[in-house]
Amino acid sequence: MPEIRYNIVTREWVIIATERARRPEEFAQANPRRGKTEAYVATCPFCPGNEHLTPPETMRLPEEGPWHVRAMPNKFAALDANASLVRRGTGMRRTITGAGIHEVIVETPLHDRTMALLEPREFERVIEAYRSCYERVTDDPRVAHATLFKNHGERAGTSLEHPHSQIVGTPIIPPRVRERMEIALRFYDEAGHCIICSTVEDELSDGARVVEENSDLVAFIPFAALTPFHLWIMPKRHTATFLEATDGELESLSRMLRSVLRRFHFGLENPDYNVSVRTPPREANGLKYYHWYVSFVPRVTRTAGFEIGSGMFINTALPEKSAEFLRGVKTEA
Amino acid sequence: MPEIRYNIVTREWVIIATERARRPEEFAQANPRRGKTEAYVATCPFCPGNEHLTPPETMRLPEEGPWHVRAMPNKFAALDANASLVRRGTGMRRTITGAGIHEVIVETPLHDRTMALLEPREFERVIEAYRSCYERVTDDPRVAHATLFKNHGERAGTSLEHPHSQIVGTPIIPPRVRERMEIALRFYDEAGHCIICSTVEDELSDGARVVEENSDLVAFIPFAALTPFHLWIMPKRHTATFLEATDGELESLSRMLRSVLRRFHFGLENPDYNVSVRTPPREANGLKYYHWYVSFVPRVTRTAGFEIGSGMFINTALPEKSAEFLRGVKTEA
Repeated sequence: MPEIRYNIVTREWVIIATERARRPEEFAQANPRRGKTEAYVATCPFCPGNEHLTPPETMRLPEEGPWHVRAMPNKFAALDANASLVRRGTGMRRTITGAGIHEVIVETPLHDRTMALLEPREFERVIEAYRSCYERVTDDPRVAHATLFKNHGERAGTSLEHPHSQIVGTPIIPPRVRERMEIALRFYDEAGHCIICSTVEDELSDGARVVEENSDLVAFIPFAALTPFHLWIMPKRHTATFLEATDGELESLSRMLRSVLRRFHFGLENPDYNVSVRTPPREANGLKYYHWYVSFVPRVTRTAGFEIGSGMFINTALPEKSAEFLRGVKTEA
Repeated sequence: MPEIRYNIVTREWVIIATERARRPEEFAQANPRRGKTEAYVATCPFCPGNEHLTPPETMRLPEEGPWHVRAMPNKFAALDANASLVRRGTGMRRTITGAGIHEVIVETPLHDRTMALLEPREFERVIEAYRSCYERVTDDPRVAHATLFKNHGERAGTSLEHPHSQIVGTPIIPPRVRERMEIALRFYDEAGHCIICSTVEDELSDGARVVEENSDLVAFIPFAALTPFHLWIMPKRHTATFLEATDGELESLSRMLRSVLRRFHFGLENPDYNVSVRTPPREANGLKYYHWYVSFVPRVTRTAGFEIGSGMFINTALPEKSAEFLRGVKTEA
């Protein structure tokens, strides 16, 4: 019989449709990217030697010598870094000028080196770049919140093959971020604990959905995962915002996210996916009731009318089975 | 310069990224379905003569003679019509048994007759079937809310070609439905008007985003449309739930939805799309502050990490331009 599960963190219900369930391997997709790419593509603006094709660099690692990671404004930015912030409100229609920052973080000089295949030290530099960009972008007085994310593959919304992440600093705090914080606040007032800390404890004590754990973080499939193999990486120590993570925690995150990406790369044949850092805004530094984490969403299914119409989801993979499958994947080729 | 717009009905912000804007025609997609289908497919469970391949019929129109529209339980139902409703709550993990109703509404006996190409009288019968199914499904004491929707094409989440809609009766009211009602309630308490009635008035008085209008309804691109060509059809007369619409209003809806689907069919080369009826639950009959409507979402773009991470959207089509384009499309071939 199907089961309807509640995600207490996001206030979302999901139908776990076990009758329609598929075996984990069935979510693997034939990958048209494989074997088609080169390490260097002369026309790619993110390949070394083509730095003049992008807007001026805003960050590079390492600072001296050939770059391994570099950031620059998005050439087709969704927001205008030179605009001033003006709000207009007329009855039913309210607008803000599209002032903000939209940057690209190129993760490697190698065109065909997907993130899962970066060496540990290379992966660490990407996470360092995440923090550095997050800090700089949220320093802008017009930026109320920054969203850090990565799109891997066409089904995940990218057309550019060269591995990259993006950061968008918006002049508003997204309503969904506010909503999650409200949920957490009410939980804290009732239960006396951070809702993320409580989730981490609950998942570790149950164990059935845990994929891996280290001293600083745990990776697990949420009890009410909205889509097959949807995965969260949560820090064990309470720290409200991404900026409050210590260097050690970021190193742990780097190791764990790399390992998770490799489980998908080798276990589900390099599926398309989105990663995002979910953090309360920087103004929430020190907050007791909420806590940053990383969300990983492989794009192995499509949302349809039911999801659009109701906001509920139908998941055809049992979270416990998905976790068991991922635990069994070898992360070394 | 880009503009950030607020959708007062859904409490969502969207970045209208005019710098990235494409011409309306560019959203047309090559349609691999076209020319490949037959009016009758021997192996299709929805084609006439194969009625024994589906679970027993729950509704048919007309009641006598060959059917034009018929409904039956979904063979791969996400919810179990024979289950009893049990809630369990243990700390962080809450569940409900997957009790509920999941039916398919076959819109036509003809395998290759997409909804846009139904004759006016055929289209009316589909809308009659919508109401009849909605009424019957929400009569079930376990059903708290029903979601009525249609998936057209693979990008919209369907693999079955034969035109059909679906209805899912869930034992809970989806949190997003509750959320929209809360937004409407606060608006009503402040403004003294239904938020949907106010939106209809505002769009009609502005006019720039209206695609078409008749005595009962208006079809328009929302001021803060989340995705290109996202479209709402709203009734002019205040009526809380879909069940409260009069026969005349449903006839008007049938004419208008048909015309809208034809604008997309002929103007944007038959794109994949989702349609859903957004209505407060049946228990809200008579409510003053909220109001049903129909949402149409063509799947001409993909959501990516920014949308997943922030809940905000980037729309590369200016709503006023999209409406202007659609107004100009001839709906007769």
